[in-house]
Amino acid sequence: MAIDLDKKIIEESLQGNAYSLGRLITFLEDRVKRAQIVKEIEPHTGNAFVIGITGPPGVGKSTLINCLVTHFRSQGFSLGLLCIDPTSPISGGSLLGDRLRLEEHSLDPDVFIRSLPARDHLGGISPTSREVIKVLDASGKDIIIVESVGAGQTQFEIKKIVDTVVVVTVPGLGDSIQMLKAGLTEIADIFVLNKADREGADQAKRELEDAAFRYTGAWKPPVVPTVATRNEGVAELCDAVAGHRKFLQESGLMEEMRRQRNLDYTMELVLDLIKNEVERRLEENSKLKELMDKANRGTLDPWSAAGQIFERILDPRPGD
Amino acid sequence: MAIDLDKKIIEESLQGNAYSLGRLITFLEDRVKRAQIVKEIEPHTGNAFVIGITGPPGVGKSTLINCLVTHFRSQGFSLGLLCIDPTSPISGGSLLGDRLRLEEHSLDPDVFIRSLPARDHLGGISPTSREVIKVLDASGKDIIIVESVGAGQTQFEIKKIVDTVVVVTVPGLGDSIQMLKAGLTEIADIFVLNKADREGADQAKRELEDAAFRYTGAWKPPVVPTVATRNEGVAELCDAVAGHRKFLQESGLMEEMRRQRNLDYTMELVLDLIKNEVERRLEENSKLKELMDKANRGTLDPWSAAGQIFERILDPRPGD
Repeated sequence: MAIDLDKKIIEESLQGNAYSLGRLITFLEDRVKRAQIVKEIEPHTGNAFVIGITGPPGVGKSTLINCLVTHFRSQGFSLGLLCIDPTSPISGGSLLGDRLRLEEHSLDPDVFIRSLPARDHLGGISPTSREVIKVLDASGKDIIIVESVGAGQTQFEIKKIVDTVVVVTVPGLGDSIQMLKAGLTEIADIFVLNKADREGADQAKRELEDAAFRYTGAWKPPVVPTVATRNEGVAELCDAVAGHRKFLQESGLMEEMRRQRNLDYTMELVLDLIKNEVERRLEENSKLKELMDKANRGTLDPWSAAGQIFERILDPRPGD
Repeated sequence: MAIDLDKKIIEESLQGNAYSLGRLITFLEDRVKRAQIVKEIEPHTGNAFVIGITGPPGVGKSTLINCLVTHFRSQGFSLGLLCIDPTSPISGGSLLGDRLRLEEHSLDPDVFIRSLPARDHLGGISPTSREVIKVLDASGKDIIIVESVGAGQTQFEIKKIVDTVVVVTVPGLGDSIQMLKAGLTEIADIFVLNKADREGADQAKRELEDAAFRYTGAWKPPVVPTVATRNEGVAELCDAVAGHRKFLQESGLMEEMRRQRNLDYTMELVLDLIKNEVERRLEENSKLKELMDKANRGTLDPWSAAGQIFERILDPRPGD
C-alpha cells in the first residue's frame, strides 16, 4: 500500500507534478525510500544541465539567480532551483530569504524551488543533494541551478555535483590573496563580478582575468560583470554558460565528468552505508561499547580504542 | 634506528624545541607515525587553552591574530598558531600571506606558527588538525590559536576542536539574514566586530548583540568592537576570552567538552581507518573492482553497486 503510494508519487514526479515532486524530495531523507526512488528514476536522468552558483555571503547570489530564472524562463526552459543552506546543521532551521526574493517565480509551475539544509554532513553538501538533482532532472527540468551559500569548502563540493560552476564576487571584498585563500579562483568555470558599478570594479575585473589566465586547462573562465539589481549583464552570463556547456559537450569532458560523478557517488554511498553500520554496531555490540567507554573515560587513548574497534568490525573474531 | 630518531624528536618537542616540533608535525602526515606520536604525547596534553578565530575572508583575521599574539606574549604566555587553509585541496599550494603578516613574531622562540592545508578532506578541517593541536599542547604552549579561513562549513568543524570560538566580522558585509545564512551567529562564543571605525558599525553591533541575545544557553556571547590595524579593542577581546574560559571551567563544560572531543576523535579515527581499508580493498579485490567498473560504465546503478560492495566488505562470503 505504502509502496503503491510511493510509486504513484514517483510517476507523477516524472511527469513534472510539483506537489508530488516536493513530497518525493522529502522521502529522500528516508534511507530505505531513497534507494528505491533513486533506482527508479535513474533511467530518466541525464538531460538537465546543472549550474552551480557560489561565492561569499552578501555578493548578491540570490538576486542574480532571480535574474537568471527570469531570463531562462523567457527562453522557454523549465527550471529546478536548489539552495544548499549550511546554516542548518545546528539550528535545524531554514531561512526564507532566498524564497522571499524568488517569490515572483513561486507560482510558476515550471520553476521548482527547494532549500536543502547541509544537516548531518558537517563540512559539505547535504547527503541528498546529488539525489535531489537527479530527481529534478528526472522530472523534466531543463536547467537546474544549485546555489551554495558560504565561501568555504562547500565550493569544492559543488564542483563535484554541477556541470558549470559560476563563482560570484564583488569589488572591494578583499585583495587577491584573500580571494585565493577562499579558493574562489580554483573552481570557477565562469567568474561573475556583481555590483560592477561599484568603485574598484576595474581592478577586481583585472584580478579575476589574471586568475583566469593562469588556468592550465583548455577552458579559460570568462569574467562577466553584472549589476543584478538592474538586470545588467544577465544575458551575457547566460551566453557564457551556454559557451561552457558547448565546450564540455564537444571536448567529451561532459561525458567523462558524469561518469566520474557516478563513480564518486558509488564510493560515497559505500562509505555512507559503512558509517551507518559502524554506528549501529557501536550502539549494539557490548565489546565495542566498552572500548568507546574507555576512550570516553580516558583509560584508553583514542588511537588504541579506534584500532581495536576497527579490527573487530572489519576482521571479526569467532564468538563476536 | 628510525624509531630512535622519532623518539628523540618527540622528546625534544615535549621540551618545546621549535625545530623538532616542526619535524614532528610533518611526521603526522604519515599514518603509521601519527599513531605512535599521538599515543606518546597524549599524557602530556590538556594544559593549553585553544582559541578558534573564524569569519569570512577579508575581515582582518590575520591582523587581529597578530595583535592577540603581541598581547598574550606581553603577559608571558607561549603560543602555538595554526592556520587551516582551505585553498589547498586543489592546488596543493600554500599561501604565505598570514606568515608575512606574522613575521614580527617569527623569530620569537615562544611563538610557533604552522599552516595546515585542508587537503584530502574536502569540506572540513585537515585530518590532522586535532593532532597538531595535541602536539602543540604537549610541547608546553599555553595558548593555541587556530585560524580558519572561509565562511562556510569550516566554522562548524572548528567548534569541535577549540575551546572558545571567536567569530570576526565587519560592518557592511551584508544584512543580518546573510550573516545567519553563513552560520556565523550560531557557533560564536565571542563576536568581534573588526574595522569598527567604519560606517554602519553601530547597526552591525546591534545586530550581533541581537543574535547573541537569542542564544539559549547559559553563555551569551559578548560583542567586542576592534580596529585591529590600530590595536584597538585587543585587550577587551583578551578579557572576553578569559571570561569564557572561566565560564567553561566553573560550569564543568570544559571537562564535558574535552571528553566529548575524545569520543568524536575516536569515532573519526575508526571511520578513517575503515575508509582507508575500503579504498585498499576496492583497489585489490577483483570482484569489488568489477562492481565499481559496472557503476562506471553505467551497467549497474550506483545504489546497487554500493549495496553489493558494502555487503562484500562488511559481511564477507567464504572464498572472497
